[in-house]
Amino acid sequence: MDYMYGPGRNHLFVPGPVNIPEPVIRAMNRNNEDYRSPAVPALTKTLLEDVKKIFKTTSGTPFLIPTTGTGAWESALTNTLSPGDQIVSFLIGQFSLLWIDQQQRLKFNVDVIESEWGRGANLEILASKIAADTAHTIKAICIVHNETATGVTNNLAQVRKILDHYGHPALFLVDGVSSICALDFRMDEWGVDVALTGSQKALSLPTGMGIVCASPKALEASKTAKSVRVFFDWNDYLKFYKMGTYWPYTPSIQLLYGLRAALDLIFEEGLDNVIERHSRLGKATRLAVEAWGLKNCTQKEEWFSDTVTAVVVPPYIDSSEIVRRAWKRYNLSLGLGLNKVAGKVFRIGHLGNVNELQLLGCLAGVEMILKDVGYPVKLGSGVAAACAYLQNNIPMIASRI
Amino acid sequence: MDYMYGPGRNHLFVPGPVNIPEPVIRAMNRNNEDYRSPAVPALTKTLLEDVKKIFKTTSGTPFLIPTTGTGAWESALTNTLSPGDQIVSFLIGQFSLLWIDQQQRLKFNVDVIESEWGRGANLEILASKIAADTAHTIKAICIVHNETATGVTNNLAQVRKILDHYGHPALFLVDGVSSICALDFRMDEWGVDVALTGSQKALSLPTGMGIVCASPKALEASKTAKSVRVFFDWNDYLKFYKMGTYWPYTPSIQLLYGLRAALDLIFEEGLDNVIERHSRLGKATRLAVEAWGLKNCTQKEEWFSDTVTAVVVPPYIDSSEIVRRAWKRYNLSLGLGLNKVAGKVFRIGHLGNVNELQLLGCLAGVEMILKDVGYPVKLGSGVAAACAYLQNNIPMIASRI
Amino acid sequence: MDYMYGPGRNHLFVPGPVNIPEPVIRAMNRNNEDYRSPAVPALTKTLLEDVKKIFKTTSGTPFLIPTTGTGAWESALTNTLSPGDQIVSFLIGQFSLLWIDQQQRLKFNVDVIESEWGRGANLEILASKIAADTAHTIKAICIVHNETATGVTNNLAQVRKILDHYGHPALFLVDGVSSICALDFRMDEWGVDVALTGSQKALSLPTGMGIVCASPKALEASKTAKSVRVFFDWNDYLKFYKMGTYWPYTPSIQLLYGLRAALDLIFEEGLDNVIERHSRLGKATRLAVEAWGLKNCTQKEEWFSDTVTAVVVPPYIDSSEIVRRAWKRYNLSLGLGLNKVAGKVFRIGHLGNVNELQLLGCLAGVEMILKDVGYPVKLGSGVAAACAYLQNNIPMIASRI
Amino acid sequence: MDYMYGPGRNHLFVPGPVNIPEPVIRAMNRNNEDYRSPAVPALTKTLLEDVKKIFKTTSGTPFLIPTTGTGAWESALTNTLSPGDQIVSFLIGQFSLLWIDQQQRLKFNVDVIESEWGRGANLEILASKIAADTAHTIKAICIVHNETATGVTNNLAQVRKILDHYGHPALFLVDGVSSICALDFRMDEWGVDVALTGSQKALSLPTGMGIVCASPKALEASKTAKSVRVFFDWNDYLKFYKMGTYWPYTPSIQLLYGLRAALDLIFEEGLDNVIERHSRLGKATRLAVEAWGLKNCTQKEEWFSDTVTAVVVPPYIDSSEIVRRAWKRYNLSLGLGLNKVAGKVFRIGHLGNVNELQLLGCLAGVEMILKDVGYPVKLGSGVAAACAYLQNNIPMIASRI
Repeated sequence: MDYMYGPGRNHLFVPGPVNIPEPVIRAMNRNNEDYRSPAVPALTKTLLEDVKKIFKTTSGTPFLIPTTGTGAWESALTNTLSPGDQIVSFLIGQFSLLWIDQQQRLKFNVDVIESEWGRGANLEILASKIAADTAHTIKAICIVHNETATGVTNNLAQVRKILDHYGHPALFLVDGVSSICALDFRMDEWGVDVALTGSQKALSLPTGMGIVCASPKALEASKTAKSVRVFFDWNDYLKFYKMGTYWPYTPSIQLLYGLRAALDLIFEEGLDNVIERHSRLGKATRLAVEAWGLKNCTQKEEWFSDTVTAVVVPPYIDSSEIVRRAWKRYNLSLGLGLNKVAGKVFRIGHLGNVNELQLLGCLAGVEMILKDVGYPVKLGSGVAAACAYLQNNIPMIASRI
Repeated sequence: MDYMYGPGRNHLFVPGPVNIPEPVIRAMNRNNEDYRSPAVPALTKTLLEDVKKIFKTTSGTPFLIPTTGTGAWESALTNTLSPGDQIVSFLIGQFSLLWIDQQQRLKFNVDVIESEWGRGANLEILASKIAADTAHTIKAICIVHNETATGVTNNLAQVRKILDHYGHPALFLVDGVSSICALDFRMDEWGVDVALTGSQKALSLPTGMGIVCASPKALEASKTAKSVRVFFDWNDYLKFYKMGTYWPYTPSIQLLYGLRAALDLIFEEGLDNVIERHSRLGKATRLAVEAWGLKNCTQKEEWFSDTVTAVVVPPYIDSSEIVRRAWKRYNLSLGLGLNKVAGKVFRIGHLGNVNELQLLGCLAGVEMILKDVGYPVKLGSGVAAACAYLQNNIPMIASRI
Repeated sequence: MDYMYGPGRNHLFVPGPVNIPEPVIRAMNRNNEDYRSPAVPALTKTLLEDVKKIFKTTSGTPFLIPTTGTGAWESALTNTLSPGDQIVSFLIGQFSLLWIDQQQRLKFNVDVIESEWGRGANLEILASKIAADTAHTIKAICIVHNETATGVTNNLAQVRKILDHYGHPALFLVDGVSSICALDFRMDEWGVDVALTGSQKALSLPTGMGIVCASPKALEASKTAKSVRVFFDWNDYLKFYKMGTYWPYTPSIQLLYGLRAALDLIFEEGLDNVIERHSRLGKATRLAVEAWGLKNCTQKEEWFSDTVTAVVVPPYIDSSEIVRRAWKRYNLSLGLGLNKVAGKVFRIGHLGNVNELQLLGCLAGVEMILKDVGYPVKLGSGVAAACAYLQNNIPMIASRI
Repeated sequence: MDYMYGPGRNHLFVPGPVNIPEPVIRAMNRNNEDYRSPAVPALTKTLLEDVKKIFKTTSGTPFLIPTTGTGAWESALTNTLSPGDQIVSFLIGQFSLLWIDQQQRLKFNVDVIESEWGRGANLEILASKIAADTAHTIKAICIVHNETATGVTNNLAQVRKILDHYGHPALFLVDGVSSICALDFRMDEWGVDVALTGSQKALSLPTGMGIVCASPKALEASKTAKSVRVFFDWNDYLKFYKMGTYWPYTPSIQLLYGLRAALDLIFEEGLDNVIERHSRLGKATRLAVEAWGLKNCTQKEEWFSDTVTAVVVPPYIDSSEIVRRAWKRYNLSLGLGLNKVAGKVFRIGHLGNVNELQLLGCLAGVEMILKDVGYPVKLGSGVAAACAYLQNNIPMIASRI
């Protein structure tokens, strides 16, 4: 019972949902359980403690919400802000755009700082706005750490510096959907107030769990935030945390055990090694793109993303055709160009529990597709460039030495 | 990696999450997929078409939302109503209470009709209110079809009759969380405007999908409803339905395939046969309770629930101790008494993909536990009463004749 | 993709293959692996060490052979005996009969000691034969520890006593297919030379692994045994054991991980507790049979089996009809009567990873079926008798106290 | 619970056990069942009918034996031959050597025709022997269709021609372990008398099922064959086939459902397309080897294998080190060189449910390893050569057009 089955393994290189490792699939292969028995709280307790590590926070309070990234956004905003609040938000691609759309529909007063797609958040404008806001009317800065549509990573440490420089008390809300657990992310060090991700991204789980982490300051803000909320209300969770039963409504038993397994794998590999692996995969992909003679949608090295690469195709090629052929002929799943870059870029997601040889299979596939659609690529060129780098940099697998 | 493992199979008789049948577990045992490939929309299309059958609607529009029942409630309310709207709601147990709490927090003006816990919705009072409301200020009637805390099933056909009798245009919103797919439910015939359930109930899936179905009148109402909503906004779904890509944000691939398998099993058995099976299980449970000399929390036969039975224990027994022992000694999961009936009732959930012999194992277990806690039950009495009925009524398994 | 699906869970009470616990199903839910990598030998090493514990041996050498119980028999015989060798074998039911058939076809000179079906091995005759055999022409005693067709457990300690009493050097070969891991079995203490079981019995795995354990004396015998053998030759294993690669041919990766999980569960529960649980299940079943007014096929208490109970039906009932109805109407799988007792007995298997409430569901089912086929059973009577015993004897689940 | 886990997916390119496709893993993810219920025979019936298609036979009788390839060999030999029978066998690599060892230990009189490893069976010598054997003392020709150790495919049609040319009645026994379901194999057309394979090879299942198919002439031979056999005796199967219960002893329920799923996938793709896919994979691998400047162990194109390629390394490199590094650094599983070619070749298995991009990932990995061990490979060269061919030859995926 597969829809449109193809022989061999599907090569899943969209930037989410990503490949689930077998041990996680196994952990979720189970019947339901009574979530009010002592077992589920005992399990949950370990998850809440351990999930903080992937945010690099000790002071944060995590929430494992049965929702998607979109719901996690809503949770972050409605628990900390009130309708009419002024917030600053950066529009740099499709996902930041969608978040801004949500912010506006939730009735916040959004001051949008727009960049060309392919560029990072304009932090100079932010600095000037913060400098000017001596009255502290700006209640929050909302920023996407890694814009999945363009493969752009923003400099969060710099945002914190700006706020600190001006002693500005705005909340610092971060979408870490395609960064947390894959890119360097430091909630406590960077003074992030709410950070969030989705289970189907670097954690390599199925979709269905929005993971939101709130700083003490964010929790404090939630006491006075007037946005109407029930399902997403942190307070309902906090009440059950206190009781030790943890769940205001039914969680997915399977995702809880899946998260346990996913965290175990990450800690076994070492979170820093996981991040290092993503760095290798990102670098290898960019070297291949360069070897193909194609442009990275991301305009400067400082914004290069180690979880997704958006590749610009020549004007005479429709990038959607590349994605279609990848799936129809090679059982390869690539990401489409979205909105402004539709037809102009295709995306290679290289995040989650994936290794170098998987990526190289994908890159070899992309080369053939490029040829299919009439781009004069030298077959093997991208793979060669990636291999040259990887062969020098892949470490031994720790458990096998 | 189980928390607090016990030998043999866990006997899961809480009224949700319920036992997942093996074919559904199998269907979900899979890697992620690109939800933007042609395969996922093709699958989704079949689901949206087929899921209408379990609501018995042809004119309704279903939404498969990555959320729980609580989120499904919020979706029903915020898409059809505006803050300040007057609604009538029935308080008859813990879940109707929670829904009312949500209605109030979402800023509706809730007129609560309360019944003693163990009794159904007071439809006479409803009738008088509807009769009096000639100005049609009441915008919606909110009712829980089956109150899971007390095992009470309300008469939805009667609600429709009252509204029709007075020609009242109020929306008719129904929580079918512990009824749909198990009890007789007729969305079109009863003129229900929004009906909803959760995947972990009679559909026998993991938690994580709120299934909401909207009548044309509800969809019309959503165009003017002023409740703030983004994640739960039907309109975002409708836009993607039109495009044929179906998903405004990432669905759980596993739950989609799981729902496909769950629906296939239900249709193979026959929805009416599924409902008939629940009727047998409910009747058998009530006969056992009677044989034990205990009282059903539900005060009248007209409200007896075929999906959950709340059993009243004598005053000298703490029903929570029964639930604890069930789990600690017999690997049996029963439902606690909640709120007003905490300590006073325990609950046997008999919904979802479960058969008679599974129930009889549970009933035998309950008998031993009753004895454990000092209730002078005659061992075997409940099982005998249940068997006497079942032996005359279980049909042959169609595929095996 | 189930053949002849029925709603709810199949109640599997044949005496093998038995219910596989979820953690074992999970452990086997995996891709293949290279069995020549360092990982598989590392895993195998732990299995060979730990599997000895279920035989209660420290001096034995185990073999995990990709075969069934029938193959394990052949392995035991051909590695220790030569064509023409005289052996003593007991015919007490269908499985001992099949083993004897194999012994004869393998060209041994089999001296068969027959008992009425329902009685144990006649050890008095054995004693007289051993006493008479001062020339030590008898090379081996072959005995089924637990005859699965009649539910008869033989007294192995007594066999050892007889051999020791006469100082007879015959090899002591034991079929422990439906006993090991469920009944008290002591390879070293009882001086068993070859003991064997199959994965699908008390270990609660799928079929496919024959587990054979050889004493030093049996290994010594294998050096001169002249039976032709290749696939079943222990020597091929021993060569690979020495090399540390363990496998002369490809093992099932899934069964290796499954065995690891199965052993882990057994050790977590405690082997003695596992045996105790089987004792409870056997006793409870026999009490039910008695309450129904039916006879146990096993004629004396000393032979009662704690893993399978063969129930004699009145002459006017065809026991096969009971088994057919169980499956067709109640989704219950019972064991047929075999050969001499075909139509006369049906069998309840109560072995493996199964608990008391599962058994009680089965017993309730049997009561209804007995009524279906015209036997005047008092519904609830068997369950009552079983519960009366179990309620006093089930321990708390260790992990949940 | 993985032994020596590494991040990302294991790249399994040993020539068996091979990658199991997800739909097959899913189909096997199940509890045990009573194999004497009507469901298992109903399932078995479809398997026996359909498995004949992968042998391209209509007159053959298949046996699904719970064993490995080694056991399947023994089944083929002992059912058709008597000790002392003269047979002709070809020694061309490790697996033909092991089969010959078995033939000798089973007491047949084996006339071995040896070839240099890397060359195919010497059919000229066969022809001369057959020509000379006018007395028809040769009872059987035993040949490995595809020698997995060297990647050599023998010409079976030619063997048949030789036998026919001389009107020689010898049985024609074929080991198709690494060929059937992947290479062109025509049991009826080539007059093969016994053909066999193992589940873990091109069928892409776990190990544990030996699949043996016997021609009418082989069945006839089995009536007089005097080799001692019980577990492997076809006659026991045939008796149960007649009764319609099919199984003389317990089969693996999981492998039966797995085989059903595996056959369904093969028929969905089309057996000829499956063979074509293997042809592409084999050709692509050989082109890569050539581009690397390395030699194929197989000395002539007529013997090139499309399921496994043995690559000869320069004398200054130890091929075992390549296999070790593949696993330790790249999570890639390659095949060791065996026996005579140990240290001299490594093997790439490209059989079973695997696609082109998977292979390209493997080839890219091999390039890096070659560099690791000091071979001056041009990175990307093999992938380029493979892609140049594949890009012109991969068909669209039928279900996705």
